[in-house]
Amino acid sequence: MQRSPLAPSTMPQPVPVAGVRYAVLEAGLRYRGRPDLLLIAFDDGTTVGGVFTRSTTAGHPVLWCRRILTGGSARAVIVNAGNANVFRGREGDEAVAKEARAVAGALGCAPESVFVASTGVIGQRLPVDEICARVPDLVAGLASEGLSEAASAIMTTDTFAKWAVAKATIDGREVTIAGIAKGSGMVAPDMATMLAFLVTDANLAAPVVQSLVASGADRSFNAITVDGDTSTSDSVLLFATGRAAHPAIDDPADSRLDAFRAALDDVMTELALMVVRDGEGASKLVTIRVSGAVDDGSARRIGLAIGNSPLVKTAIAGEDANWGRIIMAIGKAREPIENDALAISFGGHTVARDGGAVPDLDEEPVAAHLRGSEISIDVRVGRGSGDATVWTCDLTHGYIDINADYRS
Amino acid sequence: MQRSPLAPSTMPQPVPVAGVRYAVLEAGLRYRGRPDLLLIAFDDGTTVGGVFTRSTTAGHPVLWCRRILTGGSARAVIVNAGNANVFRGREGDEAVAKEARAVAGALGCAPESVFVASTGVIGQRLPVDEICARVPDLVAGLASEGLSEAASAIMTTDTFAKWAVAKATIDGREVTIAGIAKGSGMVAPDMATMLAFLVTDANLAAPVVQSLVASGADRSFNAITVDGDTSTSDSVLLFATGRAAHPAIDDPADSRLDAFRAALDDVMTELALMVVRDGEGASKLVTIRVSGAVDDGSARRIGLAIGNSPLVKTAIAGEDANWGRIIMAIGKAREPIENDALAISFGGHTVARDGGAVPDLDEEPVAAHLRGSEISIDVRVGRGSGDATVWTCDLTHGYIDINADYRS
Repeated sequence: MQRSPLAPSTMPQPVPVAGVRYAVLEAGLRYRGRPDLLLIAFDDGTTVGGVFTRSTTAGHPVLWCRRILTGGSARAVIVNAGNANVFRGREGDEAVAKEARAVAGALGCAPESVFVASTGVIGQRLPVDEICARVPDLVAGLASEGLSEAASAIMTTDTFAKWAVAKATIDGREVTIAGIAKGSGMVAPDMATMLAFLVTDANLAAPVVQSLVASGADRSFNAITVDGDTSTSDSVLLFATGRAAHPAIDDPADSRLDAFRAALDDVMTELALMVVRDGEGASKLVTIRVSGAVDDGSARRIGLAIGNSPLVKTAIAGEDANWGRIIMAIGKAREPIENDALAISFGGHTVARDGGAVPDLDEEPVAAHLRGSEISIDVRVGRGSGDATVWTCDLTHGYIDINADYRS
Repeated sequence: MQRSPLAPSTMPQPVPVAGVRYAVLEAGLRYRGRPDLLLIAFDDGTTVGGVFTRSTTAGHPVLWCRRILTGGSARAVIVNAGNANVFRGREGDEAVAKEARAVAGALGCAPESVFVASTGVIGQRLPVDEICARVPDLVAGLASEGLSEAASAIMTTDTFAKWAVAKATIDGREVTIAGIAKGSGMVAPDMATMLAFLVTDANLAAPVVQSLVASGADRSFNAITVDGDTSTSDSVLLFATGRAAHPAIDDPADSRLDAFRAALDDVMTELALMVVRDGEGASKLVTIRVSGAVDDGSARRIGLAIGNSPLVKTAIAGEDANWGRIIMAIGKAREPIENDALAISFGGHTVARDGGAVPDLDEEPVAAHLRGSEISIDVRVGRGSGDATVWTCDLTHGYIDINADYRS
């Protein structure tokens, strides 16, 4: 698979995070000649928070993670690519428990502190014994370096590995954040990415971790869309090892978290945007800003209606400033708007305002903007002060090529 | 534009409907060398009912029709193709009123009995004076033949003209039903087709007409989807001239309407299916039957989640029995289901049941079914007795070709 034309030209230098170790290997579950199995191990005392797909056909790993998340502590997460372990009934649940027991046995911890994620084809039997047989090798290979290899091991139709890092301070002490993600198909709220794992050495009580990951996901992974479809396996997990030197934080509203929260949100947004940049067949990254809605939620729903519209996305692919389709998509959202105050801009060039086309518009600057690979659409709906930003990509022949022949 | 491969091989013989006359002509609004303006005139005493897009950016003709529909009577409908007259502020409203006044003047009726519809590009000024100048020619050309020409005149990206006819009896007397529709892009509930006009000589009070068109649309135009987008202009109108010999019916629950309602529903479903068969780029017609839902509404929402899923639609285009994507789409609908009772069939061949894949499945009959042009997907969700049928088409390169370069 050719690397997405929207892939970042440079990637950040991976940094180790105290208390976090990685190992990958080739299990040959579906792919050949590349790692497809990942183990991340955490020091004792690691707290965890997570958000998951709201699908009613959620995969067996998601069901397991939701259940053990109530414990609030984690020692490992094991992830395979190529088989999603979804829709396998009791056998699927048992496979997850078996994986967790195998890892727990090798690490000397409780199975309920081992998180599990799977991505790939739905409905096929997970070769769980083959996976469990490789757990000792994984554990033997654990090392504090390996963020980019971890990012590579969880890819499916992704064309580039996605990771991000950041530093922040809590109460004057430096903490590190690192994260990996995979996306590509079935990317839409909620959740927007299939899998993302974030790690930090911050010392945070589990409810703090949960609060941070949930609010961060809303502004990042839940604000992107590739095709409006929603995976059965979407999971975002944040692990905090507590190895940093600052005092423990146990209140999500503690103001000492402000810089950390901002840095974490940046990492999550960066990963989410990489997912859009790797949207199947994407040739353009589209940033949709909606303002003037009755509230932020309404603005987000309008933005997603635009970002999910096949007619808007094909127009962008065709570099056509067809703002009529944006009017259509706004209307389809059925949110409160003021038609006579609607305004639409491409790349800062207003094409419609006060409920009508801009007269005698010079179309050349708009056309020039649309020929680029990063498109911005600003929409004002004239009803209030709610705003939101949503990211999507265009809809091209590449999407059809990839998805009309993925399984077979 | 090449005729859709799914177009019907034969079309019914158009029949006249007492009290209905048609005229078309080339106004040159957008298309050249084909009629793009249609007038249908009705005898005095004609009643009307209609349903419209629920978009908040509904076109100016829709706003006009909604308002005058309360009067319940109609003398004409004027329709143009090529310009949707949407998002033009006061100018757009005035254009519609001007059209209605022009037709009313020529026919000698009230403007409030003249319905108006427009389809085409959004946001451009409707050349209303050019249209009004042609109204005398239209009126002069009115004739009781002309159903198929009427169907042709309202096409935009449609590749074939869509009409249907039926006979039924009310209280022992024969009545006739005829209808035309156009669709193609932006086809999704609600409404599913951009424009449909149905005429009958039945003698029905306006509330009866409204009840019949609303319930019929729910089972037809609102049960089809091409791309999940919703037009600003969708309108379905039913006109009843009252020229048939049966006694007037003024109660929608009157059992003498049963045969008529069934025939009308058939005509609407036939037209709706033609719209799907002409879905942009469609190469396969997909019938999705959902049973076992908690109620019919839930079944319909599950069916539409499947029918709107780009991943399902591309799999069908690729002739891939990727039922995992159907599991995904079911989950995305967030309707009550019983995972362990889920079953999925293609063309009657069960591929998944009791919450898992069918073991040792013979894939050849499934593959043979998927190579055909009419695909059926049956889904049982194991929670109740609600069922629904939804129609869609596959998602192909043709859709991208058409929509990445429509306006320019």
